Amino acid sequence: MKIQAAIDRVPLEKAVTLIEELAAADIIELGTSLSKDFGLACLVQTRGIPRVGQLLVDIKTIDEGEYEFRRYFEAGADILTVMGAGAKATLDVCYQVAEEFGKEMLIDLLECSEERIATIAGAYPNAIYGMHFAKDAGRVADVAGQVAAFRQQFPEIQRVALAGGLQLADIPALKAAGLEIAIVGSGITGAEDPAQALQNFMEEAQ
Amino acid sequence: MKIQAAIDRVPLEKAVTLIEELAAADIIELGTSLSKDFGLACLVQTRGIPRVGQLLVDIKTIDEGEYEFRRYFEAGADILTVMGAGAKATLDVCYQVAEEFGKEMLIDLLECSEERIATIAGAYPNAIYGMHFAKDAGRVADVAGQVAAFRQQFPEIQRVALAGGLQLADIPALKAAGLEIAIVGSGITGAEDPAQALQNFMEEAQ
Repeated sequence: MKIQAAIDRVPLEKAVTLIEELAAADIIELGTSLSKDFGLACLVQTRGIPRVGQLLVDIKTIDEGEYEFRRYFEAGADILTVMGAGAKATLDVCYQVAEEFGKEMLIDLLECSEERIATIAGAYPNAIYGMHFAKDAGRVADVAGQVAAFRQQFPEIQRVALAGGLQLADIPALKAAGLEIAIVGSGITGAEDPAQALQNFMEEAQ
Repeated sequence: MKIQAAIDRVPLEKAVTLIEELAAADIIELGTSLSKDFGLACLVQTRGIPRVGQLLVDIKTIDEGEYEFRRYFEAGADILTVMGAGAKATLDVCYQVAEEFGKEMLIDLLECSEERIATIAGAYPNAIYGMHFAKDAGRVADVAGQVAAFRQQFPEIQRVALAGGLQLADIPALKAAGLEIAIVGSGITGAEDPAQALQNFMEEAQ
């Protein structure tokens, strides 16, 4: 299982420091707040920092998919996010652009009903489908059980990611449930030693 | 009826020029692309330009409502957008922050079902409810008829805005249908003389 270390709600200088400390992560995420606060500059000013994994920007596209995906891929992103709650036409064009660039799309399933997920489940074979519980709605119990149920319900979805207040203790069960990517925010960036915290998560994920 | 002149997909210097030219607008919108491209800088670098109306930033918040609304209101926005497709908790906190600042929230109804709209219709009396047809999904016929039907279906919604490729010829019927705010993008900014185009729209809206 991969660990995606999410950086959020920090000044750009702090984001730079965190990327340097988290260079070993499978995926480094520049969170929505960085895109909303700094725009493309959050990517332009950090993309050159040496790291081993991919760089995801959580831009949460919900319309104007071609414009946003092209701009952020051209600026150096490896993975971009689109809202599953958006129009099918938006998901389609984002996927086309990602395929064209040889890059990846993560579909954020925030507030998507089961019916909605069923309509988009088989449509984007290379996409990552991100289970997501709104930060504004609070923490959810038994996340691994939810991943297992999700995979059983939507077997055509190959790649599943999960975000939402994950802690180190959640990792073994999530791996066992077949999660591909565990997205961890404050569990890593809020630790006294983020690099050590990342290493702990990555060891649990092996 | 008010005219909201939307500025999108331009460099920041061009946005500055357009705001100067469109200073008479009831509302000037900094479109999603400006927020995605430049972050808060799109607001910080334009908020001081003399104008008569309000400044809206189309940030399309869909999670982390308190953070995003506080940041953009503190940076000088008068109206901010939140996705109706987001969690109820997100809409709630955005509305609370808007009320606290004495500012306004526009709920973007993109991809909201009738059932969804019914659940949020009465909850935010001071909010603007924005009918929205995805740019990615193409142009919709008889927009004024849709506004009239919407107002009949959701009489508890007092304030209605509409975006989606509006032209000058659409304005009289939209006004007659009881629309509060007509959002116009390329119909104004794409004109040879944007200031004159805005004046034409505002005269039709009287």
